[in-house]
Amino acid sequence: MSAVTKPLDKPAAGRGASLKSEFVAFKTNRIVEVASHLFYQRGYSSCTLDNVADNLGVTKPFLYSYFKNKEAILAAICEVGISEALAVLETTLAGEHRNHKALLAEVVRQVGRIVIDRQEYVVVYQREMKHLSASDYDRILRLRHSFDHQIAELIREGIEAGEFREDTDSFVAVWIGGLISWIPTWYSPGGQRSADEVVDQLVSAALRLAGAE
Amino acid sequence: MSAVTKPLDKPAAGRGASLKSEFVAFKTNRIVEVASHLFYQRGYSSCTLDNVADNLGVTKPFLYSYFKNKEAILAAICEVGISEALAVLETTLAGEHRNHKALLAEVVRQVGRIVIDRQEYVVVYQREMKHLSASDYDRILRLRHSFDHQIAELIREGIEAGEFREDTDSFVAVWIGGLISWIPTWYSPGGQRSADEVVDQLVSAALRLAGAE
Repeated sequence: MSAVTKPLDKPAAGRGASLKSEFVAFKTNRIVEVASHLFYQRGYSSCTLDNVADNLGVTKPFLYSYFKNKEAILAAICEVGISEALAVLETTLAGEHRNHKALLAEVVRQVGRIVIDRQEYVVVYQREMKHLSASDYDRILRLRHSFDHQIAELIREGIEAGEFREDTDSFVAVWIGGLISWIPTWYSPGGQRSADEVVDQLVSAALRLAGAE
Repeated sequence: MSAVTKPLDKPAAGRGASLKSEFVAFKTNRIVEVASHLFYQRGYSSCTLDNVADNLGVTKPFLYSYFKNKEAILAAICEVGISEALAVLETTLAGEHRNHKALLAEVVRQVGRIVIDRQEYVVVYQREMKHLSASDYDRILRLRHSFDHQIAELIREGIEAGEFREDTDSFVAVWIGGLISWIPTWYSPGGQRSADEVVDQLVSAALRLAGAE
């Protein structure tokens, strides 16, 4: 789960503690949101923690009480998209679906919607991942591999069930991930294609790649 | 054509001038090559022209005799991939092919090979395009649009010829461009999949998207 939606190391106990944890989550989310927008506009290297603090109207020590340094904020930003994608993947896989094709379509639709909603976060990840610490970089890469592996497994099951073309290589999961990841670099809110159209086309493209239509 | 492969404004005349233009092209290419590697490793914002000059073993004034500033070098880097892609697209379209499917496969195969060969250039473009001047940004975007439009046209003709599925939206050209553009971010030379395998899979994915197999 994302550092953004779950910023505490230990689960809070009792009503007061729960409210406190909500405040912490709220503040953490706001820091990540504002930093993401700044890094998106100016680039990570060109932004300082002072810029982030100024934009939030807080002090730098306030930021340090939530994140140990600028890189930790970048890591939280970079984790948002893939964490949310994994969460909907797992929820969708746990639900009921009439077949593998419907399941794949639903996962791709929901994840496509996430990368559109989280466009700036995903672009910051793609541009700035080289500035992540080795451990953050590896952790996020493992999340992405987990996503790809689960999609590959879904495709293998769809082939076995006779729903997807037999000559489909399950590595096609990586290409589907590519289609999804590519959207934030070219999609423009208010542009020629609406988010709904883009997501419909994404689903159709993913089904073709999987040999499911 | 690329600023890298054709750095002169006017065609050189005579043997001496031609040799001189070769020297200029050679030096320009070396600057772009070294700068691309530095920007890829450290990020554009973190690199200075002094770093580029040091790495080439030349002076900063030497760089200024070929490029007016750091942004001009970035623009030359960003243009390499798409310029080479357009060149092979045009050469391939002008050649003979037995059908639209073979033509699409050939273009995608060659362009896939370019983005693998030019991996660092393409990644620098994707990461650093926000640092381009408005005119360079627009010029390169127009080149990309030209590529997409020509692929879309090829797909439309393939549909009319009854080779590609009728329910294929020619906007699928943008998704094919996405598959190609995505390769440099995940492909690792010496990794699990060879360049040949990746290109074979890319071709197969592109044909599926176009409804051509």
